Amino acid sequence: MGESTLRDVAELAGVSPRTVSNVVNGYARVTDATRSKVEHAIAVLGYRPNVLARNLATGRSGQIVVVVPYLDTPYFAELLQTIIPTARKAGYNVLVDQTDGDRDHEVELIGRGPRRFLFDGMIISPLGLSQEDLSLRDPTLPLVVLGERPSDGTFDHVGIDDVAAATEAVRHLISIGRRRIAAIGDQPYPTGEAAQLRTRGFRAAHTAAGLPVDESLIISTTRFNRADGATAMAALLDRADPPDAVFCYSDLVASGAIHTALQRRLRVPEDIAVIGYDDIEDGRYGRPTISTISPDKKAIAQLAVERLIMRIGSTEPVLGVELRAAHRLIPRESTLRDVP
Amino acid sequence: MGESTLRDVAELAGVSPRTVSNVVNGYARVTDATRSKVEHAIAVLGYRPNVLARNLATGRSGQIVVVVPYLDTPYFAELLQTIIPTARKAGYNVLVDQTDGDRDHEVELIGRGPRRFLFDGMIISPLGLSQEDLSLRDPTLPLVVLGERPSDGTFDHVGIDDVAAATEAVRHLISIGRRRIAAIGDQPYPTGEAAQLRTRGFRAAHTAAGLPVDESLIISTTRFNRADGATAMAALLDRADPPDAVFCYSDLVASGAIHTALQRRLRVPEDIAVIGYDDIEDGRYGRPTISTISPDKKAIAQLAVERLIMRIGSTEPVLGVELRAAHRLIPRESTLRDVP
Repeated sequence: MGESTLRDVAELAGVSPRTVSNVVNGYARVTDATRSKVEHAIAVLGYRPNVLARNLATGRSGQIVVVVPYLDTPYFAELLQTIIPTARKAGYNVLVDQTDGDRDHEVELIGRGPRRFLFDGMIISPLGLSQEDLSLRDPTLPLVVLGERPSDGTFDHVGIDDVAAATEAVRHLISIGRRRIAAIGDQPYPTGEAAQLRTRGFRAAHTAAGLPVDESLIISTTRFNRADGATAMAALLDRADPPDAVFCYSDLVASGAIHTALQRRLRVPEDIAVIGYDDIEDGRYGRPTISTISPDKKAIAQLAVERLIMRIGSTEPVLGVELRAAHRLIPRESTLRDVP
Repeated sequence: MGESTLRDVAELAGVSPRTVSNVVNGYARVTDATRSKVEHAIAVLGYRPNVLARNLATGRSGQIVVVVPYLDTPYFAELLQTIIPTARKAGYNVLVDQTDGDRDHEVELIGRGPRRFLFDGMIISPLGLSQEDLSLRDPTLPLVVLGERPSDGTFDHVGIDDVAAATEAVRHLISIGRRRIAAIGDQPYPTGEAAQLRTRGFRAAHTAAGLPVDESLIISTTRFNRADGATAMAALLDRADPPDAVFCYSDLVASGAIHTALQRRLRVPEDIAVIGYDDIEDGRYGRPTISTISPDKKAIAQLAVERLIMRIGSTEPVLGVELRAAHRLIPRESTLRDVP
């Protein structure tokens, strides 16, 4: 199977190779009788048409790939709800690849391997890639990066101002009278650059308010999920001097942290206030609802798709730029009890 | 761009076409100097190697596609956490396609279009496809179906016993003394076959307990998400004779329904008990935690991948079968107050 050629099919069906090609590509100008003769020959020979032969003629596959570390992170799932329809409207189908944050898998995807040509362009939210890995990628791959890695001038990066957003989150906790504020979600260099930006905002808010930072209240986690938040909160509450507020680097982390606090019969926010990051749907339905930093996900998705399509269509190299989407603080019940 | 051939690259680089092919396919037996000459020629000519030329030789692309209606449904995201590593271990990369339940998109994916040959096989959870659409698909496409559509003997279907599972969920509500039980999530024929199986279980549990079914308590929804659950619960609670328990066809629906009940200052489960379906992580962290039917997602994912890979490797047609994964009832706080 799979070894027959288009010529073999044409011969068996008694038609020209061009007619076989028309059938395979779904063009209309073929009679039903001819189509059925060709389809029969294709089935008999187990012929697999070479899809990229067509794509090479146009130079396009019509596919965009979106590469994310984890599909069970609601932030990415929600982002895809805008990326997919925006790309479809522009005539591109979207396929999604989950990397588990595995550097080798990410490196292979942006490299010059054979898989490269399945896609016209890529939107990637890398976790394992270093800036150097990115600079060594296939330079002909139209690329837009979300999340961790700032632009080096050869690709576009779309994100929010993480330092400013984190500063606002912590300033909000200070504004409701909290003084012992913990942070859950820091990640060590070189991975976790986005996390480090949030930690920088955490420090900046303390400095601006004239408060000291208790370094022992900054908790690192391997991922940004509920289990990480639950475990970190347990460690904080086991201390002799527990915090009175927590800034969590994602809403999932906040959800896990709140779960632990409530299990220990603490009141949120009275005994311990919690703020998250991402504004995922979950946080709007929880009890308490979760205060958060809301990135403009629609804008992030649209900017990413528009830039990528512009890159795909351009015959000249395009300078890589930083694109900033807006964000806003949304106070909810986990910091202000009586917010609706 | 994209019009140069492998021969052009070989000529410019001063090497044989086979050497170019070796570089493109990442084979090791190429010196660094040669590789760099070839890569330079590729960049100058804007050459795009034909990935499927290699795949046609082996008859494989090494890619599996998983087609789901919505990526922001945690059930699918959680299923993918087993599907992806299981497939990778067997040497296949997984790409994911979101259909939004759009029938035309689903029909195109299972048809004989050029995209068909990007993938060696497909795992699909269809929403819009009719049984007839499925029977008219490309018969050479190795296919495993999850969710709605039972096997017609030409593809494999993996799922749980939905009627039995729904019966158990409602029997649980009856066992804690509830008598006016509502159902949220029914969907009309022809879509929503899985939903109809759950409604059948809802009826069966009533019949077995000698209870009448109040048809007006069976609420249809367009999707299985939080907003649907919140709206449906509001309608139920607005009645003169509200229910004392609700069977929700997904945990997301249950999460939305509980949100509405709590907003109206009702106690869950004392005033109204709620049970969901799917056992997503969210339900284990909510307040109250959500009682649910837990399908064995690991088994569903593993069965689906194993059958698909067996189909891909088989040169003979494989009879399509029904594969049943286990499920179990997990009572939590939303039906039993003092469950841990």
